[in-house]
Amino acid sequence: MHFLATDIISNKKQKKTHTPEEIQFLISEYTAGNIPDYQMASWLMASLLNGLDSEEAYLLTKEIVRSGKTIDFSDLPFPTVDKHSTGGVGDKTSLLVGPIVAAAGIGVPMMAGRSLGHTGGTVDKLESIPGFNAELPLEEFKSVVKKNKLCIIGQTGDLCPADKKMYALRDVTGTIDSIPLICASIMSKKIAEGMGALVLDIKYGSGAFMGTTDLAEDLASLLILVGRRFDKKVTALITNMNQPLGRYAGNSVEIQECLEILRNENHQDYSDTIDLTFELASEMYVNVNRTKTFAEGKMLAANMLESGAAHEKFQEMVFAQGGQIKNLPIPPQSQDVLSPASGYVSAINTKEAGNANVVLGAGRRRSTDVVNPVAGFKVHKKVGDPIEKGEPLWTLYSHETKNFSEAKERLLNSIKITTTPPPPETLLWKRIH
Amino acid sequence: MHFLATDIISNKKQKKTHTPEEIQFLISEYTAGNIPDYQMASWLMASLLNGLDSEEAYLLTKEIVRSGKTIDFSDLPFPTVDKHSTGGVGDKTSLLVGPIVAAAGIGVPMMAGRSLGHTGGTVDKLESIPGFNAELPLEEFKSVVKKNKLCIIGQTGDLCPADKKMYALRDVTGTIDSIPLICASIMSKKIAEGMGALVLDIKYGSGAFMGTTDLAEDLASLLILVGRRFDKKVTALITNMNQPLGRYAGNSVEIQECLEILRNENHQDYSDTIDLTFELASEMYVNVNRTKTFAEGKMLAANMLESGAAHEKFQEMVFAQGGQIKNLPIPPQSQDVLSPASGYVSAINTKEAGNANVVLGAGRRRSTDVVNPVAGFKVHKKVGDPIEKGEPLWTLYSHETKNFSEAKERLLNSIKITTTPPPPETLLWKRIH
Repeated sequence: MHFLATDIISNKKQKKTHTPEEIQFLISEYTAGNIPDYQMASWLMASLLNGLDSEEAYLLTKEIVRSGKTIDFSDLPFPTVDKHSTGGVGDKTSLLVGPIVAAAGIGVPMMAGRSLGHTGGTVDKLESIPGFNAELPLEEFKSVVKKNKLCIIGQTGDLCPADKKMYALRDVTGTIDSIPLICASIMSKKIAEGMGALVLDIKYGSGAFMGTTDLAEDLASLLILVGRRFDKKVTALITNMNQPLGRYAGNSVEIQECLEILRNENHQDYSDTIDLTFELASEMYVNVNRTKTFAEGKMLAANMLESGAAHEKFQEMVFAQGGQIKNLPIPPQSQDVLSPASGYVSAINTKEAGNANVVLGAGRRRSTDVVNPVAGFKVHKKVGDPIEKGEPLWTLYSHETKNFSEAKERLLNSIKITTTPPPPETLLWKRIH
Repeated sequence: MHFLATDIISNKKQKKTHTPEEIQFLISEYTAGNIPDYQMASWLMASLLNGLDSEEAYLLTKEIVRSGKTIDFSDLPFPTVDKHSTGGVGDKTSLLVGPIVAAAGIGVPMMAGRSLGHTGGTVDKLESIPGFNAELPLEEFKSVVKKNKLCIIGQTGDLCPADKKMYALRDVTGTIDSIPLICASIMSKKIAEGMGALVLDIKYGSGAFMGTTDLAEDLASLLILVGRRFDKKVTALITNMNQPLGRYAGNSVEIQECLEILRNENHQDYSDTIDLTFELASEMYVNVNRTKTFAEGKMLAANMLESGAAHEKFQEMVFAQGGQIKNLPIPPQSQDVLSPASGYVSAINTKEAGNANVVLGAGRRRSTDVVNPVAGFKVHKKVGDPIEKGEPLWTLYSHETKNFSEAKERLLNSIKITTTPPPPETLLWKRIH
């Protein structure tokens, strides 16, 4: 069926609902280069402002999937489940739930993201392990999952080329912050990756793309609805990103935190990371009927961790992908950032803290930037902690001291110290099914 | 001042009002090619949907004027006034008010448009006169006005290059129908052309870009407001375009209608053309204080017509621009379109009638198309006229009969014949000052 791109744009401009044929035409012709960027940009802005309903979000997802290759894991002799986070600072839970869930007999074929803007990326963290290869060919990815149940690779251009092209355009045309467009971007990749089921970690707060719990819930609900249209069980956790998760944010330093947790060391320091890991792992277990309840799921997760099974699974994954975990680099340079006042840590602008990591080189300004594997920071004081003037708030890490002063300034700008403690916040806001 | 294009887009996305610096940056960088089409397209759609206020419309106009050359007529020893129509079918009033107003001692330097879509263009009509040159250099344009008070040329790329670029982009991104964007496009060209004062003919109805009187009034009010910001007296007539104006629509056939009117022949056939011409001419006289009232203005216009002074002025203009009016081509082929029913002509879809002219070659689908000087049609029956089955409704004209059947079909589709006459409609809806 043939349309004029301007008619499709005009329909959305007039708040009409697109037909399946219109969306099919738009995405296939845009991918083929027959609809130019300026027409797509106009449609994206009209869609952002006038909205796309859940049916349109589903159709968009479907057509983005159709733009490229897909993988099929349905012939594996065990269920598979993936986990996706909307991005945060210090969020290394993928690196923990992967081994914990796989150790319990569930397949976890994970295509993870890279850091962009203030958020970290699982693939960048793994690549701080010398030799680690996150760019396996799709056939090898599948055979590693079949053998070990766990494999984590980066996204490839073969899958969802339409999403790659549209995301790059959205980035430069002010059209990122549309829930249906975000939904189609996330879900198309997960469907193309052949996920069996999906647990979403939708972040809200100062370090999240969704600022409020309302927006996070709207996105979660739409993702679940669209997942259902593909006969996929998708469930979501709405979680707090009002401070970096755990004690470390960066690349090799986050791997270090994971290793300590997997070795059952210093768990008292990493309680929020471990709590969220157990919530997510239990959600994954329940999603694929591995356990009946979340309580059972958390017990199973704790068992996988305490028994060392998850640690073994992690080591097996790193080995299978060529990584030498014993050679994990230690940052050669570090510097403490001291508190300018006494009181309580009452709030952290987590986006600004994440941007300190971009300054250090742990993150990316553009998708073509190369990250620094040893850059990052340690969080000595969490929100609610008392602090004395002159005590360390953070420690900065890098291979050089060059950007320490700018990172220090950003971190000091990100923090609010008050004389009374802030009201406590919950880590898990809501489960949405 | 330097901005990020994405920040300007985001501001409009969030319904913020742009600063003068933002608009200056947007237009100058777009004209220079430093802001790509896809970013401008996103901004255009955000502006169309979230609106631009009158101050933003003024600033946009100002920056578009600054993007190119400007002409100055203020050193002429007589006042000047221009006339602009938003476009219609069979509207040849520019060719009549020009000579009528100039014959009364007022300068009329007119930069007129070409046909686009279903609407006709003054320049295309004039170019159907063999030898007529509508592309005089700006200096010659000015000297002809100085000598004869009247000169009509086409728009040149030297003036408002930003508008040329933006209009082409709006045409392919569904962002034409924004009142502030239309206002900035019209007014920037008029300001750059050095107009002393301006009378607008804003059309509403089935053959107009503004479908309703409300939209036409909104556009008129904004144009007047923006004109005032440039210290220009702008007034507007809101007029009916629910049927083609006069008896002919096309190129040479409209010149023929003008010649008959100027020679005081067959005035009973052309009453609507003459009425609107007198309304516009009187508005122009009053605008520049040539007459005190519209009644006096209409008497003066009638006098200029009846005395032959307007005819002389028209011939002088055609001669000065190289045209040989005695060689005006007569269409070699013609065909009547007969009425399929008896009753009254109760309505005409004037856009569809205009599209019949595009089919015949009198109009353009794209701005690069070449028009056929002898194509067009005659309107035998106006809205409200009684008609017998088998009587001619229209006569088609061209140099060949090839497209007559498609044009006939479109014209028959455009007309509604009923057993009772329709309620009468007024030609002049409102004057807006």
